[in-house]
Amino acid sequence: MRYELYYWPNIQGRGEYVRLALEEAGVGYADVARSSQGLARMTRMMEAVKGTPPFAPPFLKAGKLVIGQTANILLYLGSRHGLAPKAEAGRLWVHQLQLTIADLVLEIHDTHHPLGPSLYYEEQKPAARKRTDAFWKARVPKYLGYFEALLAAQGGGWITGRRLTYVDLSLFQIVDGLRYAFPKRMKGFERKTPGLVELRDRVAARPNIKAYLASDRRIAFNEEGIFRCYRELDA
Amino acid sequence: MRYELYYWPNIQGRGEYVRLALEEAGVGYADVARSSQGLARMTRMMEAVKGTPPFAPPFLKAGKLVIGQTANILLYLGSRHGLAPKAEAGRLWVHQLQLTIADLVLEIHDTHHPLGPSLYYEEQKPAARKRTDAFWKARVPKYLGYFEALLAAQGGGWITGRRLTYVDLSLFQIVDGLRYAFPKRMKGFERKTPGLVELRDRVAARPNIKAYLASDRRIAFNEEGIFRCYRELDA
Repeated sequence: MRYELYYWPNIQGRGEYVRLALEEAGVGYADVARSSQGLARMTRMMEAVKGTPPFAPPFLKAGKLVIGQTANILLYLGSRHGLAPKAEAGRLWVHQLQLTIADLVLEIHDTHHPLGPSLYYEEQKPAARKRTDAFWKARVPKYLGYFEALLAAQGGGWITGRRLTYVDLSLFQIVDGLRYAFPKRMKGFERKTPGLVELRDRVAARPNIKAYLASDRRIAFNEEGIFRCYRELDA
Repeated sequence: MRYELYYWPNIQGRGEYVRLALEEAGVGYADVARSSQGLARMTRMMEAVKGTPPFAPPFLKAGKLVIGQTANILLYLGSRHGLAPKAEAGRLWVHQLQLTIADLVLEIHDTHHPLGPSLYYEEQKPAARKRTDAFWKARVPKYLGYFEALLAAQGGGWITGRRLTYVDLSLFQIVDGLRYAFPKRMKGFERKTPGLVELRDRVAARPNIKAYLASDRRIAFNEEGIFRCYRELDA
């Protein structure tokens, strides 16, 4: 079975956490909306999925199943492709961590959209500065400190122990994204999280991930996605 | 096995979605932080859970397992207590809907905290007004319209068909909470979502839920929780 991933074609966004999992697992997938006529196909899918229409992209078509919500897609893929434990306790723990990452991703998005997703960034610049300051003062230390402590407790392994999971891939994306969006702030901060930085490097060096990052399947960071580099927010 | 729920003792907050599920299922649980010395016990638990510490409340102790993240707790409880399908496709669909509700809950929280959770409401009133306006203009119609359409497609059943799931309980909480926080706005809006209003009433009339709502186990809405009634935001 070849998976079909449906996500906005011009951004990494939330789809990227799914792309990284599919690439690491080395399973075949079509990134539908990036193909010719693909965006129209995605729109039709959203309207046509009888009974279980997704609220928003990303969603994954796996045979007859259409699965929405990033963390839910990873829950489905994880135990099938060796990216999460098979036993219930381990599966729940990995999923729990991914949901915490989802919360962090939303807070990252809100640094440039504190007044909500329905207004442009240009309409909310002063609020964005305030939110970004609060984010770096209180939230980054809390979230990254939490993951750093988990890594430290594992003594140099992956976030849940000896085997890589989709959470490690997502943490790679978080570190890379924060570096892109806030180069100055992140440079100052990341010496407090050496474990996460080292984890990021180890994920980037995985053969499948390395090949993916060098390919044109990896969309470059840009100012339409979750991680946006606005100089005035990086002061 | 008697469950232990750990959540802040003075608010409904995210813990309420778990309480509603436990109450409807009629399973025994201790609301630990509401008992004498309970808050200190919750704090100790967060520091002491070896290997799998929760990032934040709520979390549920089920035997040796400690499960964090509201939607993850419901995923665990759902298929065990008849509040979600047992088959994978149904379980994933119900969980997907719950994750969409989790996104909505975060957006509701951000109406009074657009500059982030680390500042007081009083420090962000002007931004809160703007965010609330955008929320009611664009986001409430999108979210509630989505759930209303799902209900309409079921023709009067529960959100996923003939059997009640934890998502129905959560939608009850959403309607009740929006009525508490924004009485005027919601009064104007809810005629567009007759299915959700009717669903809310049917959940409230379930024997176990009815008994729960009348008991002192149900904490009253207040201005420390997710749903806060600030007159200036309900204009």
